[in-house]
This record gives sequence, C-alpha cells and structure tokens, in this order.
Amino acid sequence: MSDTYVLVHGAWHTGAEMEAVASELRAAGHVVHCPTLAGNRPSDDRSAIGLADAVASLVDFVETAQLQGVRLVGHSYGGMVISGAAAALLPRLARLVYVNAFVPLPGECLNDLVPPHYTALFDAIAAANANAVMLPFPVWREAFINDGDLALAQSAFERLNPHPYRTFTEPSAIEQPMAALMIGKSYVNCVLDTALPASLPWHPRLSERLGLYRYIESAGSHEAWFTEPAALARAIERAGRD
Amino acid sequence: MSDTYVLVHGAWHTGAEMEAVASELRAAGHVVHCPTLAGNRPSDDRSAIGLADAVASLVDFVETAQLQGVRLVGHSYGGMVISGAAAALLPRLARLVYVNAFVPLPGECLNDLVPPHYTALFDAIAAANANAVMLPFPVWREAFINDGDLALAQSAFERLNPHPYRTFTEPSAIEQPMAALMIGKSYVNCVLDTALPASLPWHPRLSERLGLYRYIESAGSHEAWFTEPAALARAIERAGRD
Amino acid sequence: MSDTYVLVHGAWHTGAEMEAVASELRAAGHVVHCPTLAGNRPSDDRSAIGLADAVASLVDFVETAQLQGVRLVGHSYGGMVISGAAAALLPRLARLVYVNAFVPLPGECLNDLVPPHYTALFDAIAAANANAVMLPFPVWREAFINDGDLALAQSAFERLNPHPYRTFTEPSAIEQPMAALMIGKSYVNCVLDTALPASLPWHPRLSERLGLYRYIESAGSHEAWFTEPAALARAIERAGRD
Repeated sequence: MSDTYVLVHGAWHTGAEMEAVASELRAAGHVVHCPTLAGNRPSDDRSAIGLADAVASLVDFVETAQLQGVRLVGHSYGGMVISGAAAALLPRLARLVYVNAFVPLPGECLNDLVPPHYTALFDAIAAANANAVMLPFPVWREAFINDGDLALAQSAFERLNPHPYRTFTEPSAIEQPMAALMIGKSYVNCVLDTALPASLPWHPRLSERLGLYRYIESAGSHEAWFTEPAALARAIERAGRD
Repeated sequence: MSDTYVLVHGAWHTGAEMEAVASELRAAGHVVHCPTLAGNRPSDDRSAIGLADAVASLVDFVETAQLQGVRLVGHSYGGMVISGAAAALLPRLARLVYVNAFVPLPGECLNDLVPPHYTALFDAIAAANANAVMLPFPVWREAFINDGDLALAQSAFERLNPHPYRTFTEPSAIEQPMAALMIGKSYVNCVLDTALPASLPWHPRLSERLGLYRYIESAGSHEAWFTEPAALARAIERAGRD
Repeated sequence: MSDTYVLVHGAWHTGAEMEAVASELRAAGHVVHCPTLAGNRPSDDRSAIGLADAVASLVDFVETAQLQGVRLVGHSYGGMVISGAAAALLPRLARLVYVNAFVPLPGECLNDLVPPHYTALFDAIAAANANAVMLPFPVWREAFINDGDLALAQSAFERLNPHPYRTFTEPSAIEQPMAALMIGKSYVNCVLDTALPASLPWHPRLSERLGLYRYIESAGSHEAWFTEPAALARAIERAGRD
C-alpha cells in the first residue's frame, strides 16, 4: 500500500535531515515529501520569522502540491508546526503523527513546554545572535544524539542551521486542543530521547494531550533520524498506516 | 520442565483468545488451560453475572480439574479474577502472574482503577445494553491493539463478546491486600500497552501492590495475545518458571 | 580504539563479579580493571569499614596503577564510591559512568536514597550480624535478578559476601553536587532493574542529579552483570566512548 507522508523537521534542521528516514519509507512503497519550513532556509531572515510563518509555509507546500491522504509527521518543534497547520489542511490529511514532538494547547508557545534552563539558555544565545539560536555542542552530543558515536554527533551537528527564535516564543494560533480535532493521531516515542528531561517528558506529558491516540515506540535518541533511520521509518509506518 | 499454566482472559475475551500464547507455552513443554469465565460464555446472562460469579467459576475449574502447582495467569480484568480466587486455591498454586492486569485492594472494584472517562463511557454503554458493555472500535484500535495492523485489529475485534458490567462494578471480596498472600507473584508489562493511560498506568501503580514481586517486560500492546504471542509466552514463562 | 575502564562493583559483590562484562569489553579492545573495594575483601573487618575507606581504596588503586583517561564505572553502591573518588582522581578521568548506581548529594548516605522498608530490613540484619548485611534470598531472586532462572539466581547468590553496613550509613564526603564536577557523565539504565521500586527509581530520580549527562539503556535486571553481560558491555561502551 502506497501512502503519502510529509515529514516536518524540527528546529535547526531542514528537510534534508529527514531524507534517511524518507528513503526507508520510499523503499516500503510510500510517497514521501520533506519540505523545509520558512525560517530554516538558507536566506531566511532569522530575526523576523515566527511560528505563524512556518505554519503558513507548510500549509502552502501541501496545498501547492495538491496532496491528499497525507500522513503529516512532525518531529520536535515540527509538532508545533503540524499542530498549527492541521485545521487548515484537514481535508487533505489522513493522520497526524508526532515523533517526540511538541503538542501545544491553544495560546502556548514552544518555550512554555521546555524546562526553564533551556529557555534561559536560548534567551541568552538569541540575544547575542540577532534572535537566532543554536544548540551548544555539549548539549547536542549528550542530550540529543546520546546514542551516536562522536563522529556522527559532529557530522550531524555541522549540518544544523541557526533557528529563528520567534518560532519558540510566538504562541500557537490553534483554536482548540489537538484532542478535539476530528482526525486520527499517533505519537512515536524514541525511548532514548533525553532532549527533554525524563522528569518533564515528551511522553505521556505531551502525547496524552492528543486524547485518543496511537502510541508507538522506537529505538534511539531525539536524533534517531540520524542514528536509527530504519527503525524510525518502521515506527512511523506503524503509526501512520491507517 | 513441564509446568501447569492456567491463562485467565480479560474482559470481552474468552479462553479461545488465549490460545495463540497457550500454543507457544505448550510447544515449550508446559500444560496449559484456557478456561472461559462465567459471564463470557455464549449463553451467559450479561445482566446478572458479577465478579463473584466469575471468581467462583475459576475456582471451580481449577478444583474440578484437580490441578496442582498452577501458575495462575490473569490478563487485564483477569487480574481481578485471579486475585479473588487465589486464597481459595492457594494449596494448588505455585505462583500468581499478572499480565497488564488489575490488582485490587480489599473492597475495590475494577472501575475504581480506571480513569473517569472510561467509567463514564462504560456506564453509558451498559445503560443502553442491558448491563453489557462493549468497547467502541476506535478505542480498541488506537489504545488496545495499537501495534497491530488494521486487518488484525478488525478480525480480533470481531471475536470479542459483550461483557457483563457487574464484574466491573462489584467490589473484590479479597480479605487482605495481595501483597500479604504467601505465594510468589510476578507482573508482566507489555511496553506498548496504552489501554490504561501512561499517567495512570498498570506499572508501577498496580504492580507494586504485589509487595515483593518479579517484574518482566514484553513487547507489544494490551492485545499482545494477538500481536506478539511468541514474545508474550516467553515473558510468561520467565515470570512463572519458579 | 582502546580505552581504559575501571569497573567498580556494588554492595555484596567483588571485582570478580564484574569479570563477565570486563571480558566483553576486553574483547572489544579495551583495558579493564575490576578492583575489589575495601570492605568486600575476604579478611576485611565488616564491623568497622565505612564509605570513606571504600573511596580511599579506589583512589589508591587508580593512583597506584597510574591509570590515565579512565572511564570510571560504578554499579549500584559503586556509584557512592565513584562519586566520592571523582574529585581526587579528576586529572586521571575521562568520564564517570553510573550503571543503576546511586548518585549522592553532599551529606547524603546510601540509606537516604532507598525506600524505608529496605533500611528497616538492613538495620535489623546488621544489628544481628556485627554490622554486616546480607540480602535475603527472596529479595535477591525477585527484585535483583528477576530476569535470571533459578539456577543462576542461586549460583550468583552464593558468590555474594557480607557487606559492611557503615558504607550505607556514612554520609558522602563530596563537597558539591556531581552535576558541578567538570567531567562528562553517563547513566546506564537496565530496563528490568527493580532493585529500587519503580516509584522511587534509579532513573530519572538519580540520573538527573548528574546535570547534563548521556543516557543509555540496556537489557536486563540489576544483576545484568550475570544475566546480560554482552548487552551491558555494549551499553557501557556507548556510555563511555567519548
């Protein structure tokens, strides 16, 4: 069965970093798109672009491509973006799939969902970099890609791009909790993910905001897109197949 | 080593749905019984049968068959039933094994152990169906058999039978916490089980009511009996072997 | 790449019980030492030896052997010991690796970190045995080596030695939280470990005391050193490789 997947990247990433998983899904017969959101393209103005711009860019991508029956998959920050785009794209969607992704309530921004030590860190970096944020390498290596070796951690880090901080501070414009949206929802949890602390976790803190949802686990860390692409593709397929 | 296992099904199931796991255990050399409890047999009166009737039917089964050295395994609602039967059957038992199963305290009913949205749902369905409850298919598909594909979710759903609601509302007649019963106890946790929400979970919320117990994990969802029978059989064997 | 590992055993164990994992690490090219701490050697005076003595014996071992670039790995009680030794050994260390191990705050003793029913049990046993404690076999079999079969549970139990209770009651002499020590830290969590109850767990309760740290999971129980040595060695290597 050939399904259509749209993989929406997280902060500091582009669609290119989704390609290893996308290739696995294509090998299973699916059509897969990996757009890069507004704010993460090379010439985008990191000082100005916010969450609504990123959401609009995703809506535009799906509508322009005239996709139907879409499994809309969001990773990390991408959960803010697919949540924001879901109502507008509803007739084109088959299911929402969150992969260790943020699930906002109406009026919440991403920074409302992370521990205070992250927002303090991001505030300081953004203030010094024209409102663009980067992750310090030690945080990336230990907490984001803990299951990779040092060489992979370094090569993946070199592919990241500065992220527009307004996408973390601008509240989601969703009008109702995601649980109320009439569409199937899944949550994929990579069991080694420590990008959020285990005491303030992705699952079940954020997953259960989906109401009735399908839970799937996968191997690997927050960056399983690099470290465990085959396992993650199988998990996304189980999350999205119906 | 040949051990004797009695597999006690959950709500909406019969012994027949335990057979895939039973076959795996038999292939490992064990003797396995899969009785169907009072209340889930074709001609049983769903409006009248309660927890004490189901417990009595299990006690009667084990005594009539004159079983000894029994590993008494309860799944889900079956945990209410093995808990209720354990004191009467104690001389015949080698160990109690709970598989994502309820562990009551004295005086608790099953509905005391599930989230309010389930009891509200069950109340409404039972009121409209002469005190018999069924699971809506979307709940079954997303929260009970999340790891199966749609075809398996549907075929398994078609095998379910209406469940007598009094078995959920009648308090357990156990006289002491299960932790106080002088017998070995194990808890098998299927790691994808979301039949109870992760914020009100099987483990450790209910497992630790067993006091000193043996913890074993297995692959799969609440319905691993359908989706992961070989892995579940191995887990039950590790839980029950001594 | 050949790294140097020092594996520090837990209570009731000696270095000899670390050898199965050590062999796996050596087969991967590493140099591995498994010292036995003061207090667990055959002729040690269990009534007198405390935590500071055990810490001093580890510092002495590493300094006498003139080791450099050490991955210092502590299991269970061994976490108290590597924490206490870390500041003195800092120039010789590459990373601290905790394997289901205690992480004290300044002034805490091991007994501060375990449930009250354990301290009551240990108090009684120590009072009756000249301040040496042993684990009752049922606790060992059910809660420590739950994934082994009975024969392995018994043979491993026979290798244990009486443990000097002052190492559980003497406060750690660390001067600052481990999170403040300028060195990489990892936590390996064996997913079947129930030596501490899941409601008062190793992870994240103790792991997050490390501050920024690398999280790795492994198969098996608290005694994966006996039941899953190959998997545990791979996990330790991922935890310690950089």
